[in-house]
Amino acid sequence: MANLDNKKALVLVADGSEEMETVITIDVLRRAQIDVTVAGIALQNENYAKCSRGVMIVPDQSFSNISKEVLSKKCIYDIIIIPGGLTGAQTISSNSEIQELLASEHRDGKFIAAICAGTIAIKSANINKGGKITSHPVVKADLENEYNYQEERVVVDNKVISSRGPGTAFLFALTIVEQLLGKEKRDEISSPMILASTL
Amino acid sequence: MANLDNKKALVLVADGSEEMETVITIDVLRRAQIDVTVAGIALQNENYAKCSRGVMIVPDQSFSNISKEVLSKKCIYDIIIIPGGLTGAQTISSNSEIQELLASEHRDGKFIAAICAGTIAIKSANINKGGKITSHPVVKADLENEYNYQEERVVVDNKVISSRGPGTAFLFALTIVEQLLGKEKRDEISSPMILASTL
Ligand SMILES: [Cu+]
Repeated sequence: MANLDNKKALVLVADGSEEMETVITIDVLRRAQIDVTVAGIALQNENYAKCSRGVMIVPDQSFSNISKEVLSKKCIYDIIIIPGGLTGAQTISSNSEIQELLASEHRDGKFIAAICAGTIAIKSANINKGGKITSHPVVKADLENEYNYQEERVVVDNKVISSRGPGTAFLFALTIVEQLLGKEKRDEISSPMILASTL
Repeated sequence: MANLDNKKALVLVADGSEEMETVITIDVLRRAQIDVTVAGIALQNENYAKCSRGVMIVPDQSFSNISKEVLSKKCIYDIIIIPGGLTGAQTISSNSEIQELLASEHRDGKFIAAICAGTIAIKSANINKGGKITSHPVVKADLENEYNYQEERVVVDNKVISSRGPGTAFLFALTIVEQLLGKEKRDEISSPMILASTL
């Protein structure tokens, strides 16, 4: 049986991150009792991330405050998650500290998950090149030469979880729950959310 | 053809509101160029609503700042929207200023929309009694004696739009878009979100 204790997730959020993808992921993981930390990256107003459609989300931490702890393995996450939203994804994928973090975490056997345009951070961190990936169609051209590009709604390959857009965010989040905690936990939290019969 | 200009929506948010239902609705409406104002109700920390799974959302306005303008019709919304999350829904549905606002707006032919536990605010405002409604199953017992309770994923009846939970929030938001702006607008914004084939 999967160990239900102490699973920890780090969700990165920047100005321009897609708020639905961000919030669906955080909420669904917390419904599964995963300990989620929302870290703000290079926010113009340090108090909140101004997301792609203007929703303002207060992060739990500033990434600059926790990056040293994370990189030095004092603070250990089971998964790092990157939402979409083109502007936010560009900020996240071009940050060298994050590139280093994603690469080292993946080398250590941790999961890396990205949805929509957030998937470009997987490429910029040089993770799982040649492996299977999906993304929002708008960034397909950035990925298909260096990955085995898939049109599936969610793809899991070598501890890299990728997905396509706001409409696949529930499936993305539930797949993360299943990978970390098993199918039973996924099923347990699905029912009260009144999901569609196919995601 | 529907008039695409100047549609205005007011989304009410309190501590304990369901963050997925709140954010999916705001985001999808803004994708349809609806002018959305997020108003915070009785927030413990006036800077943000602490939602049901800990996501902190900064409102655009405090409801107490705009309630006079809204009640005196200086500020006119085409729709008022109440998310779920039991604690948030209780705060919103027990607020007498909001009850007055919802009732007077509905009398004036405006839409009232609620999802999940947010639907109890429709009852507390005495709106469309005997009409068709749906909700999250947890509040079905509060509604079924005074409404024609439905198990549909979204219900539109006499300018009251109701829905069931986080998993029906995309359908809820798209139904609002269709009611305000027509099916063409709904279809236009649906495609980039990569929604499931049935919602
Ligand atoms: Cu709810």
